Amino acid sequence: MKKFEEKTIDTEKIFDGKVIKLQVDSVTLPDGNTSKRELIKHPGAVAIIALTEENNIVFVEQYRKALEKSILEIPAGKLEDGEAPEVTAKRELEEETGYTTDHLELVTSFYTSPGFADELVYVYFTNQLKRLQEDIAGDEDEFVEKYELPLGEAERLMEEKRIHDAKTAYALLYLKTRGE
Amino acid sequence: MKKFEEKTIDTEKIFDGKVIKLQVDSVTLPDGNTSKRELIKHPGAVAIIALTEENNIVFVEQYRKALEKSILEIPAGKLEDGEAPEVTAKRELEEETGYTTDHLELVTSFYTSPGFADELVYVYFTNQLKRLQEDIAGDEDEFVEKYELPLGEAERLMEEKRIHDAKTAYALLYLKTRGE
Repeated sequence: MKKFEEKTIDTEKIFDGKVIKLQVDSVTLPDGNTSKRELIKHPGAVAIIALTEENNIVFVEQYRKALEKSILEIPAGKLEDGEAPEVTAKRELEEETGYTTDHLELVTSFYTSPGFADELVYVYFTNQLKRLQEDIAGDEDEFVEKYELPLGEAERLMEEKRIHDAKTAYALLYLKTRGE
Repeated sequence: MKKFEEKTIDTEKIFDGKVIKLQVDSVTLPDGNTSKRELIKHPGAVAIIALTEENNIVFVEQYRKALEKSILEIPAGKLEDGEAPEVTAKRELEEETGYTTDHLELVTSFYTSPGFADELVYVYFTNQLKRLQEDIAGDEDEFVEKYELPLGEAERLMEEKRIHDAKTAYALLYLKTRGE
C-alpha cells in the first residue's frame, strides 16, 4: 500500500558501516510540501523462540553497547548477504546456544522501528532442539552466555528489565498464548 | 548488569539529525581485543494500545519512508525533550486519533533494536477513551488515517503484512492474553 506516499526528491548518503547505513531523503509530502527523512538501512535479522525438552526458554545474555548494559534476549542475529532467513536462524541458534534443530516454524516477521529503520526481524519457533557435539564459534567480537529459564522466571526478569527488548517481549507473550 | 562490558576507547560522532544521531564507538572487548560499534541515539517513544467502547482497537495508517509502504500501527510518537512518557502518550493519542483519556496504564517498555539503537518504547493501555470536541493538529509533516478494528480483523491484517511492526505485533498478543 502506498497511501500518503512520500516521493523521493533527493537522497544524501551519510554513512556506510559494517552493520547499518544512514541516508537522508528529501521527500514530497501528500500536501505538496517537502520534508526530510533520516533513514537507517539494515540487512534484517532473525530471532528464535526455542524451547528445551524441559519446556524452558533458551536465552542469551549479551552486552549491548547501545544500551550500556547486558540483557537477556532470545537468540538472534543479522542476515548475511543473500542468506535465507531460516539458514541464518539455524546458524545463530548453533553459534549462540550449542543447540541445533531441523524444525523451525516461522511465527511472524516485523519491522522493529518503522519510523527510521528498515530492519525486519523474522521470528522462528522450535521445540525440537538437539545438542551439538561440539561448540561452533560465533562472531569473534560477540560474547554471549546461555540461559534456560521457565516462562514464569522470564516474566519476572522482564519486570526487572533484565529482559528489555521488543522481540523477547513478543516471544514471552507468544509462549503465553501458545500455552507452553 | 555490566557482564561482558565493552569499554569505550573513542567516540566518533557522525550525524546529528532531527530524530536520530549516529556515532561509532571504538570499544575494548572482554577478551582485550578491540572492535567498533555503530550506534543510533534516539529520544525514545511511546505507543498506546487503545480500545474503544465497542472493544475495537485504534490504529493509525501512515506512510513509512524507511519501508516505502504504508502500514497500520497502534498510535505512537517520539518523546519530546524532557517530556514524561505519559504526557507524550496522551498528546499522541489526541493528535493521531481524536480521542483522549485520563487513564493510561503502563504495560511495559522495551528497546526496539538493542543491537544498534537505544530507542526505548513505553507501551500504554487504555480502554477509557473520550472523543475530543475538536481535532488537534499533529506534526505538519505527518499524515495519518484512523481505523478502529476488532482483534480478529487486526490479526488477519498482520498475516497480510498490512500490520507489520514490532510494537503492534506485541499489542495484538497483549490483547489476546488479556482476553479482550
